[in-house]
Amino acid sequence: MLTLYDFMGSGNGYKVRLLLAQLGTPYKLVERDILKGETRTPEFLAKNPNGRIPTLELEDGTHLAESDAILWYLAEGTAFAPADRLQRAQTLQWMFFEQYSHEPHIAVARFWRHFFAKLSPAQELELPARMEKGYAALGVMEKHLARHQYFVGDRYGLADVALYAYTHVAPEGNFDLDHYPHTCAWLARVAAQPGHVSIDHKN
Amino acid sequence: MLTLYDFMGSGNGYKVRLLLAQLGTPYKLVERDILKGETRTPEFLAKNPNGRIPTLELEDGTHLAESDAILWYLAEGTAFAPADRLQRAQTLQWMFFEQYSHEPHIAVARFWRHFFAKLSPAQELELPARMEKGYAALGVMEKHLARHQYFVGDRYGLADVALYAYTHVAPEGNFDLDHYPHTCAWLARVAAQPGHVSIDHKN
Repeated sequence: MLTLYDFMGSGNGYKVRLLLAQLGTPYKLVERDILKGETRTPEFLAKNPNGRIPTLELEDGTHLAESDAILWYLAEGTAFAPADRLQRAQTLQWMFFEQYSHEPHIAVARFWRHFFAKLSPAQELELPARMEKGYAALGVMEKHLARHQYFVGDRYGLADVALYAYTHVAPEGNFDLDHYPHTCAWLARVAAQPGHVSIDHKN
Repeated sequence: MLTLYDFMGSGNGYKVRLLLAQLGTPYKLVERDILKGETRTPEFLAKNPNGRIPTLELEDGTHLAESDAILWYLAEGTAFAPADRLQRAQTLQWMFFEQYSHEPHIAVARFWRHFFAKLSPAQELELPARMEKGYAALGVMEKHLARHQYFVGDRYGLADVALYAYTHVAPEGNFDLDHYPHTCAWLARVAAQPGHVSIDHKN
Protein backbone atom coordinates (compact mmCIF):
# COMPACT_ATOMS: atom_id res chain seq x y z
CA MET A 1 0.00 0.00 0.00
CA LEU A 2 1.09 3.60 -0.64
CA THR A 3 2.15 5.67 2.37
CA LEU A 4 1.64 9.44 2.28
CA TYR A 5 3.67 11.61 4.64
CA ASP A 6 1.67 14.77 5.04
CA PHE A 7 0.55 17.74 7.14
CA MET A 8 -3.21 18.20 7.18
CA GLY A 9 -3.16 22.00 6.84
CA SER A 10 -1.03 21.86 3.70
CA GLY A 11 -2.65 22.63 0.35
CA ASN A 12 0.21 20.84 -1.38
CA GLY A 13 -0.62 17.75 0.65
CA TYR A 14 -4.33 18.24 0.04
CA LYS A 15 -3.79 18.03 -3.73
CA VAL A 16 -2.54 14.48 -3.29
CA ARG A 17 -5.20 13.49 -0.73
CA LEU A 18 -7.92 14.86 -3.01
CA LEU A 19 -6.68 12.97 -6.06
CA LEU A 20 -6.19 9.74 -4.08
CA ALA A 21 -9.78 10.04 -2.82
CA GLN A 22 -11.14 10.66 -6.32
CA LEU A 23 -9.13 7.76 -7.73
CA GLY A 24 -10.34 5.54 -4.89
CA THR A 25 -6.74 4.53 -4.17
CA PRO A 26 -6.19 3.24 -0.63
CA TYR A 27 -3.18 4.61 1.27
CA LYS A 28 -1.76 4.95 4.73
CA LEU A 29 -1.56 8.53 6.00
CA VAL A 30 1.39 9.37 8.26
CA GLU A 31 1.19 12.88 9.65
CA ARG A 32 4.33 14.99 10.09
CA ASP A 33 3.91 18.34 11.86
CA ILE A 34 5.87 20.91 9.86
CA LEU A 35 5.32 23.44 12.66
CA LYS A 36 7.34 21.16 14.97
CA GLY A 37 10.16 20.50 12.49
CA GLU A 38 9.07 16.90 11.91
CA THR A 39 10.12 17.07 8.22
CA ARG A 40 13.67 18.15 9.07
CA THR A 41 14.64 15.14 11.22
CA PRO A 42 17.39 12.78 9.95
CA GLU A 43 14.74 10.05 9.63
CA PHE A 44 12.56 12.21 7.37
CA LEU A 45 15.47 13.70 5.40
CA ALA A 46 16.44 10.13 4.48
CA LYS A 47 13.04 9.91 2.73
CA ASN A 48 13.12 13.40 1.18
CA PRO A 49 16.44 15.30 1.34
CA ASN A 50 14.53 18.53 0.65
CA GLY A 51 12.59 18.03 3.91
CA ARG A 52 9.06 18.66 2.71
CA ILE A 53 5.63 17.14 2.73
CA PRO A 54 3.86 15.70 0.84
CA THR A 55 6.21 12.78 0.27
CA LEU A 56 4.80 9.56 -1.15
CA GLU A 57 6.31 6.18 -0.31
CA LEU A 58 5.65 3.58 -2.98
CA GLU A 59 5.16 -0.11 -2.30
CA ASP A 60 8.83 -0.83 -3.04
CA GLY A 61 10.07 1.82 -0.59
CA THR A 62 10.88 4.46 -3.24
CA HIS A 63 10.06 8.01 -2.12
CA LEU A 64 8.57 10.58 -4.45
CA ALA A 65 8.49 14.27 -3.51
CA GLU A 66 6.89 17.46 -4.91
CA SER A 67 3.10 17.52 -4.86
CA ASP A 68 2.69 17.97 -8.60
CA ALA A 69 5.14 15.20 -9.51
CA ILE A 70 3.17 12.92 -7.16
CA LEU A 71 -0.10 13.96 -8.84
CA TRP A 72 1.42 13.19 -12.24
CA TYR A 73 2.58 9.76 -11.08
CA LEU A 74 -0.81 8.86 -9.60
CA ALA A 75 -2.86 10.17 -12.52
CA GLU A 76 -0.99 8.60 -15.44
CA GLY A 77 -3.37 6.49 -17.47
CA THR A 78 -6.48 7.86 -15.72
CA ALA A 79 -9.08 10.42 -16.83
CA PHE A 80 -7.36 13.06 -14.64
CA ALA A 81 -4.33 13.25 -17.00
CA PRO A 82 -4.96 14.23 -20.62
CA ALA A 83 -3.97 11.77 -23.35
CA ASP A 84 -3.15 14.58 -25.77
CA ARG A 85 0.46 15.85 -25.95
CA LEU A 86 -0.43 19.55 -26.01
CA GLN A 87 -2.96 19.15 -23.19
CA ARG A 88 -0.35 17.33 -21.07
CA ALA A 89 2.01 20.28 -21.59
CA GLN A 90 -0.79 22.76 -20.82
CA THR A 91 -1.55 20.83 -17.63
CA LEU A 92 2.10 21.14 -16.61
CA GLN A 93 2.07 24.83 -17.61
CA TRP A 94 -0.66 25.49 -15.05
CA MET A 95 1.02 23.28 -12.43
CA PHE A 96 4.31 25.18 -12.81
CA PHE A 97 2.37 28.46 -12.78
CA GLU A 98 0.84 27.31 -9.50
CA GLN A 99 4.19 26.48 -7.89
CA TYR A 100 6.01 29.59 -9.13
CA SER A 101 3.46 32.41 -9.42
CA HIS A 102 0.65 31.34 -7.07
CA GLU A 103 1.78 29.17 -4.14
CA PRO A 104 4.75 31.29 -2.96
CA HIS A 105 2.38 34.24 -2.54
CA ILE A 106 -1.10 32.92 -1.74
CA ALA A 107 -0.08 29.83 0.25
CA VAL A 108 2.66 31.63 2.16
CA ALA A 109 0.41 34.60 3.11
CA ARG A 110 -2.27 32.10 4.17
CA PHE A 111 0.26 30.03 6.14
CA TRP A 112 1.50 33.05 8.08
CA ARG A 113 -2.00 34.35 8.83
CA HIS A 114 -3.63 31.00 9.48
CA PHE A 115 -0.99 29.19 11.56
CA PHE A 116 0.78 31.97 13.45
CA ALA A 117 -0.85 34.06 16.16
CA LYS A 118 1.28 37.07 15.19
CA LEU A 119 3.44 37.89 12.17
CA SER A 120 7.14 38.60 12.66
CA PRO A 121 8.43 42.06 11.64
CA ALA A 122 10.08 40.48 8.55
CA GLN A 123 6.78 38.81 7.59
CA GLU A 124 4.89 42.11 8.06
CA LEU A 125 7.40 43.76 5.73
CA GLU A 126 7.10 41.06 3.06
CA LEU A 127 3.34 40.62 3.20
CA PRO A 128 2.22 43.49 0.88
CA ALA A 129 4.39 42.17 -2.00
CA ARG A 130 3.09 38.62 -1.44
CA MET A 131 -0.51 39.89 -1.49
CA GLU A 132 0.11 41.89 -4.68
CA LYS A 133 1.68 38.93 -6.48
CA GLY A 134 -1.05 36.63 -5.18
CA TYR A 135 -3.73 38.90 -6.65
CA ALA A 136 -1.77 38.99 -9.93
CA ALA A 137 -1.94 35.17 -10.04
CA LEU A 138 -5.67 35.26 -9.32
CA GLY A 139 -6.00 37.76 -12.18
CA VAL A 140 -4.33 35.35 -14.61
CA MET A 141 -6.67 32.56 -13.49
CA GLU A 142 -9.76 34.79 -13.71
CA LYS A 143 -8.89 35.78 -17.28
CA HIS A 144 -8.60 32.12 -18.28
CA LEU A 145 -11.73 31.04 -16.43
CA ALA A 146 -13.77 33.80 -18.09
CA ARG A 147 -13.48 31.72 -21.28
CA HIS A 148 -13.14 28.18 -19.94
CA GLN A 149 -14.95 25.90 -17.50
CA TYR A 150 -11.73 24.20 -16.39
CA PHE A 151 -8.02 24.87 -16.94
CA VAL A 152 -7.23 22.35 -19.66
CA GLY A 153 -9.42 20.82 -22.38
CA ASP A 154 -12.58 22.09 -20.68
CA ARG A 155 -12.75 19.11 -18.37
CA TYR A 156 -11.77 18.62 -14.74
CA GLY A 157 -8.21 17.34 -14.36
CA LEU A 158 -4.84 17.66 -12.65
CA ALA A 159 -4.41 21.38 -13.32
CA ASP A 160 -7.70 22.02 -11.49
CA VAL A 161 -6.67 19.82 -8.57
CA ALA A 162 -3.33 21.68 -8.32
CA LEU A 163 -4.86 25.17 -8.49
CA TYR A 164 -7.91 24.45 -6.33
CA ALA A 165 -5.85 23.48 -3.28
CA TYR A 166 -4.60 26.94 -2.28
CA THR A 167 -7.15 29.05 -4.17
CA HIS A 168 -10.09 27.76 -2.13
CA VAL A 169 -8.34 28.68 1.14
CA ALA A 170 -7.00 32.03 -0.15
CA PRO A 171 -9.53 33.88 2.08
CA GLU A 172 -7.64 32.39 5.09
CA GLY A 173 -4.75 34.56 3.86
CA ASN A 174 -7.13 37.57 3.70
CA PHE A 175 -7.46 37.39 -0.09
CA ASP A 176 -10.83 38.77 -1.12
CA LEU A 177 -12.27 36.71 -4.00
CA ASP A 178 -15.29 38.97 -4.55
CA HIS A 179 -13.77 40.49 -7.69
CA TYR A 180 -13.03 37.05 -9.17
CA PRO A 181 -16.51 35.71 -10.04
CA HIS A 182 -15.31 33.26 -12.71
CA THR A 183 -12.79 31.84 -10.25
CA CYS A 184 -15.51 31.49 -7.57
CA ALA A 185 -17.77 29.68 -10.07
CA TRP A 186 -14.89 27.35 -10.96
CA LEU A 187 -14.21 26.66 -7.26
CA ALA A 188 -17.85 25.58 -6.93
CA ARG A 189 -17.59 23.35 -10.02
CA VAL A 190 -14.48 21.66 -8.62
CA ALA A 191 -16.10 21.16 -5.21
CA ALA A 192 -19.08 19.49 -6.94
CA GLN A 193 -16.92 16.84 -8.64
CA PRO A 194 -17.64 13.18 -7.77
CA GLY A 195 -15.53 11.97 -4.85
CA HIS A 196 -14.52 15.49 -3.76
CA VAL A 197 -13.22 15.70 -0.18
CA SER A 198 -12.37 18.72 1.95
CA ILE A 199 -8.86 19.76 3.02
CA ASP A 200 -9.36 18.31 6.51
CA HIS A 201 -10.68 14.96 5.30
CA LYS A 202 -8.70 11.96 6.47
CA ASN A 203 -8.88 8.71 4.53
CA MET B 1 8.14 26.58 -37.62
CA LEU B 2 8.20 27.08 -33.86
CA THR B 3 8.72 30.61 -32.55
CA LEU B 4 10.44 31.12 -29.20
CA TYR B 5 9.94 34.40 -27.36
CA ASP B 6 12.93 34.70 -25.09
CA PHE B 7 15.50 36.86 -23.29
CA MET B 8 19.06 35.72 -23.85
CA GLY B 9 20.22 36.18 -20.23
CA SER B 10 17.43 33.97 -18.88
CA GLY B 11 18.30 30.51 -17.62
CA ASN B 12 14.64 29.54 -18.00
CA GLY B 13 14.89 30.50 -21.67
CA TYR B 14 18.25 28.78 -22.00
CA LYS B 15 16.70 25.45 -20.93
CA VAL B 16 14.47 25.59 -24.00
CA ARG B 17 17.22 26.84 -26.37
CA LEU B 18 19.55 24.08 -25.14
CA LEU B 19 16.99 21.32 -25.67
CA LEU B 20 15.97 22.66 -29.10
CA ALA B 21 19.66 22.67 -30.12
CA GLN B 22 20.18 19.12 -28.86
CA LEU B 23 17.01 17.93 -30.59
CA GLY B 24 18.10 19.68 -33.79
CA THR B 25 14.69 21.37 -33.99
CA PRO B 26 14.68 24.56 -36.08
CA TYR B 27 12.92 27.58 -34.60
CA LYS B 28 12.63 31.32 -34.93
CA LEU B 29 14.00 33.27 -31.96
CA VAL B 30 12.20 36.51 -31.08
CA GLU B 31 13.93 38.40 -28.31
CA ARG B 32 11.94 40.30 -25.71
CA ASP B 33 13.89 42.44 -23.24
CA ILE B 34 12.47 41.78 -19.78
CA LEU B 35 14.54 44.69 -18.42
CA LYS B 36 12.56 47.04 -20.68
CA GLY B 37 9.14 45.57 -19.82
CA GLU B 38 8.74 43.96 -23.23
CA THR B 39 6.90 40.96 -21.74
CA ARG B 40 4.27 43.16 -20.08
CA THR B 41 2.94 44.85 -23.24
CA PRO B 42 -0.69 44.16 -24.31
CA GLU B 43 0.72 42.42 -27.42
CA PHE B 44 2.83 40.03 -25.32
CA LEU B 45 0.19 39.49 -22.62
CA ALA B 46 -2.13 38.26 -25.38
CA LYS B 47 0.40 35.46 -25.94
CA ASN B 48 1.11 34.77 -22.26
CA PRO B 49 -1.21 36.43 -19.71
CA ASN B 50 1.44 35.78 -17.02
CA GLY B 51 3.87 38.02 -18.95
CA ARG B 52 6.97 35.85 -18.92
CA ILE B 53 9.56 34.41 -21.22
CA PRO B 54 10.18 31.78 -22.45
CA THR B 55 6.92 31.47 -24.36
CA LEU B 56 6.73 29.05 -27.26
CA GLU B 57 4.44 29.66 -30.22
CA LEU B 58 3.46 26.46 -32.00
CA GLU B 59 2.86 26.19 -35.73
CA ASP B 60 -0.91 26.58 -35.21
CA GLY B 61 -0.51 29.79 -33.17
CA THR B 62 -1.04 28.17 -29.75
CA HIS B 63 1.19 29.63 -27.04
CA LEU B 64 2.80 27.50 -24.37
CA ALA B 65 4.38 29.07 -21.26
CA GLU B 66 6.54 27.88 -18.34
CA SER B 67 10.00 26.64 -19.30
CA ASP B 68 9.55 23.15 -17.88
CA ALA B 69 6.16 22.60 -19.53
CA ILE B 70 7.77 23.64 -22.82
CA LEU B 71 10.65 21.19 -22.22
CA TRP B 72 8.14 18.43 -21.53
CA TYR B 73 6.23 19.20 -24.72
CA LEU B 74 9.37 19.23 -26.88
CA ALA B 75 10.91 16.12 -25.34
CA GLU B 76 7.93 13.76 -25.44
CA GLY B 77 8.85 10.66 -27.39
CA THR B 78 12.58 11.50 -27.45
CA ALA B 79 15.51 10.11 -25.44
CA PHE B 80 15.41 13.22 -23.21
CA ALA B 81 12.13 12.12 -21.58
CA PRO B 82 12.07 8.77 -19.75
CA ALA B 83 9.65 6.11 -20.96
CA ASP B 84 9.23 4.71 -17.44
CA ARG B 85 6.35 6.02 -15.29
CA LEU B 86 8.40 6.40 -12.10
CA GLN B 87 11.28 8.06 -13.96
CA ARG B 88 8.86 10.50 -15.58
CA ALA B 89 7.58 11.44 -12.11
CA GLN B 90 11.16 11.70 -10.77
CA THR B 91 12.01 13.99 -13.70
CA LEU B 92 9.08 16.22 -12.76
CA GLN B 93 10.09 16.02 -9.09
CA TRP B 94 13.46 17.60 -9.93
CA MET B 95 11.87 20.12 -12.30
CA PHE B 96 9.43 21.26 -9.60
CA PHE B 97 12.30 21.29 -7.09
CA GLU B 98 14.15 23.56 -9.51
CA GLN B 99 11.26 26.00 -9.88
CA TYR B 100 10.34 26.11 -6.18
CA SER B 101 13.53 25.53 -4.16
CA HIS B 102 16.33 26.54 -6.56
CA GLU B 103 15.34 29.17 -9.13
CA PRO B 104 13.67 31.70 -6.76
CA HIS B 105 16.91 31.86 -4.78
CA ILE B 106 19.82 31.15 -7.13
CA ALA B 107 18.37 32.71 -10.30
CA VAL B 108 17.01 35.75 -8.50
CA ALA B 109 20.29 36.46 -6.63
CA ARG B 110 22.15 36.03 -9.93
CA PHE B 111 19.65 38.29 -11.75
CA TRP B 112 20.07 41.08 -9.23
CA ARG B 113 23.86 40.86 -9.17
CA HIS B 114 24.38 40.24 -12.87
CA PHE B 115 21.91 42.66 -14.45
CA PHE B 116 21.74 45.57 -12.00
CA ALA B 117 24.63 47.92 -11.28
CA LYS B 118 23.45 48.34 -7.69
CA LEU B 119 21.01 46.45 -5.48
CA SER B 120 18.03 48.31 -4.01
CA PRO B 121 17.76 48.50 -0.19
CA ALA B 122 14.94 45.90 -0.32
CA GLN B 123 17.11 43.56 -2.41
CA GLU B 124 20.06 44.01 -0.02
CA LEU B 125 17.75 43.06 2.84
CA GLU B 126 16.40 39.98 1.07
CA LEU B 127 19.69 38.73 -0.35
CA PRO B 128 21.07 36.79 2.67
CA ALA B 129 17.92 34.61 2.87
CA ARG B 130 18.04 33.99 -0.91
CA MET B 131 21.71 32.98 -0.65
CA GLU B 132 20.99 30.65 2.28
CA LYS B 133 18.11 28.93 0.50
CA GLY B 134 20.16 28.74 -2.70
CA TYR B 135 22.94 26.94 -0.86
CA ALA B 136 20.35 24.59 0.68
CA ALA B 137 19.18 23.68 -2.84
CA LEU B 138 22.78 23.10 -3.94
CA GLY B 139 23.18 20.85 -0.88
CA VAL B 140 20.22 18.70 -1.94
CA MET B 141 21.68 18.39 -5.45
CA GLU B 142 25.17 17.59 -4.15
CA LYS B 143 23.80 14.80 -1.95
CA HIS B 144 22.03 13.24 -4.93
CA LEU B 145 25.00 13.65 -7.29
CA ALA B 146 27.34 12.00 -4.79
CA ARG B 147 25.55 8.76 -5.69
CA HIS B 148 24.37 9.38 -9.25
CA GLN B 149 25.89 10.56 -12.54
CA TYR B 150 22.68 12.34 -13.57
CA PHE B 151 19.41 13.24 -11.86
CA VAL B 152 17.14 10.48 -13.16
CA GLY B 153 17.88 6.96 -14.35
CA ASP B 154 21.62 7.69 -14.48
CA ARG B 155 21.37 9.17 -17.95
CA TYR B 156 21.26 12.74 -19.23
CA GLY B 157 17.70 14.02 -19.58
CA LEU B 158 15.20 16.80 -18.93
CA ALA B 159 15.91 17.08 -15.20
CA ASP B 160 19.57 17.78 -15.99
CA VAL B 161 18.65 20.38 -18.61
CA ALA B 162 16.33 22.10 -16.11
CA LEU B 163 18.86 22.13 -13.25
CA TYR B 164 21.94 22.94 -15.33
CA ALA B 165 20.53 26.25 -16.59
CA TYR B 166 20.82 28.28 -13.39
CA THR B 167 23.35 26.09 -11.55
CA HIS B 168 26.11 26.73 -14.09
CA VAL B 169 25.68 30.50 -13.75
CA ALA B 170 25.26 30.43 -9.95
CA PRO B 171 28.75 32.00 -9.57
CA GLU B 172 27.33 35.10 -11.33
CA GLY B 173 25.13 35.39 -8.21
CA ASN B 174 28.26 35.04 -6.01
CA PHE B 175 27.51 31.40 -5.16
CA ASP B 176 30.76 29.58 -4.45
CA LEU B 177 30.61 26.04 -5.86
CA ASP B 178 33.97 24.96 -4.40
CA HIS B 179 32.29 22.90 -1.70
CA TYR B 180 30.08 21.10 -4.24
CA PRO B 181 32.53 18.86 -6.10
CA HIS B 182 29.94 16.33 -7.27
CA THR B 183 27.82 19.16 -8.66
CA CYS B 184 30.85 20.63 -10.47
CA ALA B 185 31.64 17.21 -11.99
CA TRP B 186 28.01 16.90 -13.12
CA LEU B 187 28.12 20.41 -14.67
CA ALA B 188 31.15 19.25 -16.71
CA ARG B 189 29.35 16.05 -17.75
CA VAL B 190 26.32 18.06 -18.93
CA ALA B 191 28.51 20.55 -20.83
CA ALA B 192 30.18 17.62 -22.61
CA GLN B 193 26.90 16.25 -24.01
CA PRO B 194 26.54 16.08 -27.81
CA GLY B 195 24.99 19.24 -29.22
CA HIS B 196 25.53 21.28 -26.05
CA VAL B 197 25.34 25.05 -26.58
CA SER B 198 26.17 27.90 -24.21
CA ILE B 199 23.62 30.29 -22.66
CA ASP B 200 24.49 33.04 -25.15
CA HIS B 201 24.25 30.80 -28.20
CA LYS B 202 21.72 31.96 -30.79
CA ASN B 203 20.29 29.47 -33.28
